[in-house]
Amino acid sequence: MSSTAPLGRGPKVRAAVLAATVDELGEHGYAALTVENVARRAGVHKTTVYRRWPDRDALIADALGDSVTTDIPIPDTGSIDEDLRGLARGLVAWVKSSGGQAVLSVLLSETTGAARPPDAVRHVFRDRIRTSLPVVGRAIERGELPTGTDAAELVKALVAPIYFRALITREPVTDATADAAARLALTGARAGLFEKSG
Amino acid sequence: MSSTAPLGRGPKVRAAVLAATVDELGEHGYAALTVENVARRAGVHKTTVYRRWPDRDALIADALGDSVTTDIPIPDTGSIDEDLRGLARGLVAWVKSSGGQAVLSVLLSETTGAARPPDAVRHVFRDRIRTSLPVVGRAIERGELPTGTDAAELVKALVAPIYFRALITREPVTDATADAAARLALTGARAGLFEKSG
Repeated sequence: MSSTAPLGRGPKVRAAVLAATVDELGEHGYAALTVENVARRAGVHKTTVYRRWPDRDALIADALGDSVTTDIPIPDTGSIDEDLRGLARGLVAWVKSSGGQAVLSVLLSETTGAARPPDAVRHVFRDRIRTSLPVVGRAIERGELPTGTDAAELVKALVAPIYFRALITREPVTDATADAAARLALTGARAGLFEKSG
Repeated sequence: MSSTAPLGRGPKVRAAVLAATVDELGEHGYAALTVENVARRAGVHKTTVYRRWPDRDALIADALGDSVTTDIPIPDTGSIDEDLRGLARGLVAWVKSSGGQAVLSVLLSETTGAARPPDAVRHVFRDRIRTSLPVVGRAIERGELPTGTDAAELVKALVAPIYFRALITREPVTDATADAAARLALTGARAGLFEKSG
């Protein structure tokens, strides 16, 4: 992680290229993104990008996955109420960020007849959900939630109202949106609505 | 409503043009839609379309509004459990229909840098939610839900998980998805989570 790594080497370059990719996506969208523009923006040579990523889609998938998994903190406060509120507020902050806007534009572009994003990109949301599952597991261990609670179903119930407002009704999403989503998901979980059947 | 209405006249033409508009949107997307193609598909002359709709966006907004407000039945069974389940199942059926796919592609196209849909189009979802509000009002009158329940918030909680799966995680949406969404929304409503503050 030397800050004197020569151009084209080291984790600094990877971070710069991924950040440039997200910025390009946010400004010009998925279909218009080119490795040339990303390289220029990151201040590296095109070959430096191709040395790490086989193609454009691999670069985009890596950049979006990186944004999704690093830009939303996974809380561990010891209380499921706090953790769910923290997860929801983190998602709200991310949805409003340039990185979040870039990810959402790519993940939705398939539905508009634009160039079809690779499956790897479409799996980013599911990966994002997976990284949140331990929050539910810890709550079950603490006896805060029913043993059979399906963590993925609970997390989806938590985030769905936030994405719905941000993408469908285009309402402003705020901490109040996040807190309401957390209350509803938690109420459902305590009522056993997310318990695995069978 | 005469079935012998001459070409270019009567409600049959309006219905044919709106249906052709939805079909064109579903196949080619918002940006590519032209009045010429719609007219050809509907079997009418372009001037027949312009006689009723000032421009392309007015036609699209009318077609989508028509699809959204007519293709999803608003149940009135006398039971909020039944009504919410019916609303959710109707939405699932619509999301999977060609009309639903067309509407969603247009409403999401703005986030992908494609031609920006007119506000009228973006209001379609809110209009759709409005048409569902009486279901909640009737339940409050029957004493099934808290008096202060915010009908719009309840309806949004009902539909959010369905749109989330259909558009974000791209999971299949089924009647089971609809029933789970109805259970969660109803549990939250009975717990007073949607009561207007103040």
